[in-house]
Amino acid sequence: MKNIIIKFYPDKKEITVKRSTSLLDSARRAGVKLESLCGGEGICGKCKVVIEKGTRNLSKLTNVEKSKLSDKEISRGYRLACCSLANGNLTVRVPEESRGGTQRVLIEGVETFFEIDPVVEKIFLKLPKPSLQNQKSDFERLGDCLKEEHGLGEISIPLSVMKQLPSILRKSNWETTVTIWGEKKIIRVEPRETLARNYGIALDIGTTTVVGYLVDLNTGKLLEASSILNPQVKYGEDVMTRITFAIQDPDGLKKLNESIIWGVNGIVRDVCSKAHVKSEEISELTVVGNTAMHHLFLGLCPKYLGLSPFTPVIQNPVDIEARNLGIDVNPVANVHILPVIACFVGADNVGVILATQINESSKPVLAIDIGTNGEIALGNRDSITACSCAAGPALEGTHIKFGMRATEGAIEKVKIDPSNLEVKYSTIGDAKARGLCGSGIVDAVAELFKAGVILRNGRINLKIEDPHLRTTKEGNEFILARGNETATGEEIKITQKDIREVQLAKAAIYAGASILMERHGVGIREIDSLLLAGAFGSSIDKWSAKVIGLYPDVPLDRVKTVGNAAGAGAKQALISSKKRMDAEIIAKNVHYLELTIAPEFKDEFISAMYFPHSDINRFPSMRKLYEKLPIWSEILKS
Amino acid sequence: MKNIIIKFYPDKKEITVKRSTSLLDSARRAGVKLESLCGGEGICGKCKVVIEKGTRNLSKLTNVEKSKLSDKEISRGYRLACCSLANGNLTVRVPEESRGGTQRVLIEGVETFFEIDPVVEKIFLKLPKPSLQNQKSDFERLGDCLKEEHGLGEISIPLSVMKQLPSILRKSNWETTVTIWGEKKIIRVEPRETLARNYGIALDIGTTTVVGYLVDLNTGKLLEASSILNPQVKYGEDVMTRITFAIQDPDGLKKLNESIIWGVNGIVRDVCSKAHVKSEEISELTVVGNTAMHHLFLGLCPKYLGLSPFTPVIQNPVDIEARNLGIDVNPVANVHILPVIACFVGADNVGVILATQINESSKPVLAIDIGTNGEIALGNRDSITACSCAAGPALEGTHIKFGMRATEGAIEKVKIDPSNLEVKYSTIGDAKARGLCGSGIVDAVAELFKAGVILRNGRINLKIEDPHLRTTKEGNEFILARGNETATGEEIKITQKDIREVQLAKAAIYAGASILMERHGVGIREIDSLLLAGAFGSSIDKWSAKVIGLYPDVPLDRVKTVGNAAGAGAKQALISSKKRMDAEIIAKNVHYLELTIAPEFKDEFISAMYFPHSDINRFPSMRKLYEKLPIWSEILKS
Repeated sequence: MKNIIIKFYPDKKEITVKRSTSLLDSARRAGVKLESLCGGEGICGKCKVVIEKGTRNLSKLTNVEKSKLSDKEISRGYRLACCSLANGNLTVRVPEESRGGTQRVLIEGVETFFEIDPVVEKIFLKLPKPSLQNQKSDFERLGDCLKEEHGLGEISIPLSVMKQLPSILRKSNWETTVTIWGEKKIIRVEPRETLARNYGIALDIGTTTVVGYLVDLNTGKLLEASSILNPQVKYGEDVMTRITFAIQDPDGLKKLNESIIWGVNGIVRDVCSKAHVKSEEISELTVVGNTAMHHLFLGLCPKYLGLSPFTPVIQNPVDIEARNLGIDVNPVANVHILPVIACFVGADNVGVILATQINESSKPVLAIDIGTNGEIALGNRDSITACSCAAGPALEGTHIKFGMRATEGAIEKVKIDPSNLEVKYSTIGDAKARGLCGSGIVDAVAELFKAGVILRNGRINLKIEDPHLRTTKEGNEFILARGNETATGEEIKITQKDIREVQLAKAAIYAGASILMERHGVGIREIDSLLLAGAFGSSIDKWSAKVIGLYPDVPLDRVKTVGNAAGAGAKQALISSKKRMDAEIIAKNVHYLELTIAPEFKDEFISAMYFPHSDINRFPSMRKLYEKLPIWSEILKS
Repeated sequence: MKNIIIKFYPDKKEITVKRSTSLLDSARRAGVKLESLCGGEGICGKCKVVIEKGTRNLSKLTNVEKSKLSDKEISRGYRLACCSLANGNLTVRVPEESRGGTQRVLIEGVETFFEIDPVVEKIFLKLPKPSLQNQKSDFERLGDCLKEEHGLGEISIPLSVMKQLPSILRKSNWETTVTIWGEKKIIRVEPRETLARNYGIALDIGTTTVVGYLVDLNTGKLLEASSILNPQVKYGEDVMTRITFAIQDPDGLKKLNESIIWGVNGIVRDVCSKAHVKSEEISELTVVGNTAMHHLFLGLCPKYLGLSPFTPVIQNPVDIEARNLGIDVNPVANVHILPVIACFVGADNVGVILATQINESSKPVLAIDIGTNGEIALGNRDSITACSCAAGPALEGTHIKFGMRATEGAIEKVKIDPSNLEVKYSTIGDAKARGLCGSGIVDAVAELFKAGVILRNGRINLKIEDPHLRTTKEGNEFILARGNETATGEEIKITQKDIREVQLAKAAIYAGASILMERHGVGIREIDSLLLAGAFGSSIDKWSAKVIGLYPDVPLDRVKTVGNAAGAGAKQALISSKKRMDAEIIAKNVHYLELTIAPEFKDEFISAMYFPHSDINRFPSMRKLYEKLPIWSEILKS
């Protein structure tokens, strides 16, 4: 029989095949990357190729191809590789769109490139039917087919899925789609072909905010997101009060665990219903959170997180079936909780490092994840150190009189004219103002400082007389929005107490970052990039943040806001097995610095309470600004 | 509410109960021994009591009682304790027949030598204490110690066990005993050193009888055994009726599954309490049973077991956490269900082959496992073939008018003097006779045959006139024990119908064994050993069994009774990793012969209905015996 030569471009690979070999098989044997989700069944329509030479040497255009290719494509010589059999020599081009593999995933600021390679995959199978000559059991029938046609080794199946096998296989005439976790466990069996429906959820469990992302596991695309206030706040606003509650209330741990699971189930329902996905179609979840949130989510006693010598119950990543956590998705779907670094540097920080790729950078990168607990990492591919500081929830909009989360009506940008203290602001959704979100708070404080309304030590300057300023029995305040401008009819104000909260938060973060740099021997000029992360970080004005001294004086063009990088890390671990392994390596290798026992911390913290710092030399780039400001005289005095 | 006093005789125990408490519950609380196979469901009719005083203070006679008690019993004051509720003071006598008795379980007929090497092991650890210099998590601390000191690799821990870690480690000053399954999963963590307490249970789930063995995993020693009537009997007495029930009743599968799990939990409680072991100390279970029992135990649909082309849901061994089956032991203890060979040759047969070591023998071995389903295997280390035949429950004592399980008072040996038909018998525990167990039935039929009372075709010889023989409207019968000798005061008889049941059972078994030998080309002289297994097989008289033609005429010195070999196989798989692997190999390699489609089966079966067979040449060794017997003239005639 005559052999046939097929050339593939742009790979420039060539292979000799027998007559009637499909182009898909030829490409595979030639080692040419060609996407095919359905394994050559003419279902997915992904294996498009363009015939450059030898069109006549191909089998006829099939009905399947007519249905999967547009008229335009057909006229350009497109074919489906699985449907096209070679009868003579051919030259074939694999277009970009069919090459599968590396996809660009843009996740809120951090651009990373990696291959979509989820731990969960779906495989469509046509099983041989049983007969008196082939009395194999249903499970061995399936397992043998996975072995022979897909090269999978020993595979397991949970009892609950095994129970469904006999009826599903028989009612679908032995055509089935199996969902496989980690190449070793069948977690779902569906009748017929359902390859396109493959979903997962990434969760970022913050002390204050919980965010969930529904992701298409085939494409890596974000389909829906949803965020809620962590329902545990009713038991305590910060990590330490929740740990105390877990220890002191006899059912404390149970209540905290049940409340976060309840919250997560709400997010699952919400994203699924928005995307018309059934919750049982969710095949995996990945989870990040600080170590306390991690423990409470798993129902692990957090007692020893808060007691010296500070030991978590587990640092390794945890894989656990959803049913064992009470999460309402496919009961045997895996829930992967990313590893933690230490008691106060959790899986969320691992997520930040993963998403910001500090571990791959040649130069020093400083990542600051701003949340109720601020987590800071500094390093490069050789070495990374991380620490944690109690920033409090002010920058997330809590503990601020008119603070709110970044939802419709939140003031997110503020400008104040120093000459007359006139306020201009913009709100999310251009709605009537309802309060201030984190970025608005930072803007407002920075602008008030620049206008001289706030002094370097944080006090409102009582010498200024202006209708925006008012003294009540609760203290001094500045009116940002008049009642007639707001959704509620009430004025929106910044109080002296609010400013104090911002000072505490920014001082903690600055001190942590500063000590890390000092310990690493890295100055502000050596930092290659400074990344501001956190749900809050995405909208923060990096200039305003520098004005108040939230972070060390790294040149502004090296400062990037990267949004919820912890969540982005969770998403990456969801869609890439490699990233998931990277996370484990990160957790093992990151050094942890315990700030509370660092002798320099107290001084650093107190000095950083000033705007921007008690020592103006720490902020050389600000000198020019300050010299123009009324505040300059105050600096000269000190 | 008025309390009620119930006195029990002959125990002379007294208890105060609330109105409407059943007599069964009252007896249990008073510590009075009262048999109940069905657990108070009104099914077994075993919990008979006699009301001596206060009949008016009892609930009305129920329909269940009317069906289970004879008119004579009712007139004597008999009631079923489970159906009778106390409404006032009572005096109750528990008659001899209801006192239950210690079940005799004989297993070790097969002596085998192998290393005790259970899949579960306990390890005692002294962990380094945490410090600010060693902030490892609790789990990594444990894992590293297992790695460094015991060479174990990556190890997992279920969440429920992880939750206990922090407090156990701290309260035991970091000295702990961990129980590890398969060198890879921590299934229990206990404070301090508990190495000696390491337990498992082997289960043999028969269609009629379920047996559990509590085993010390350190020594391999049997600590306790317990057996019950399979609670599924209320849904059908044999495999096919249960499969039908599972399909036709909307909750059929659920009911069957729940009832066997309920039964197993009863066995677990029983063996544990007898051995003073806590149920959570049970670290593993192994399970054998025929394929239908296997499916029902796992809750798998048995529908296609009974439909051509006869495919099970799974053949491989199954490992599953006890909590996922509802078995009340350590929730994450593994339950290992041995593999099955085919729809009608199950894990029990794998157990028999394992225990009898056919797979290691150089010469042909024939193993006959006698149960409701008789399973027969023939072969050696090169090749084994197995088949299954529907023997019915007669040889287990069911479907026999005075049949009973092998408990106290069961007639187990019978001798009949041919000259005067005088009967001599012995009972288990030398108690007053209460009925016949399987070995007694076989003895009785063999002796009656030798005495000429039973003809070759199974009919009772009506020409004989003797007071032991009687004709009633229900047919002919032979009186084995007079009323004055028995526990109940009633006569114990063998009826014509009983003999028919024995004929059906023995014909099925003989035919199966005979066809296997024919197919293998092995004659009766080539069989190296013939092993009679089954709970029943332990006490059977092998000579009596040969007289009735239960098995091919293999020389008697090569015939061994090996007791419950299926259960012995389950025990071996419990205490030896190697044996567990052997079982998997056995299941993969044994050939299955489908008797129902074997063309020769019908003729073989019909010929084997005769005593010992229609063709006396099949039993050459019997000729000498027969020549001395009155039956010889009958043989000469045929």
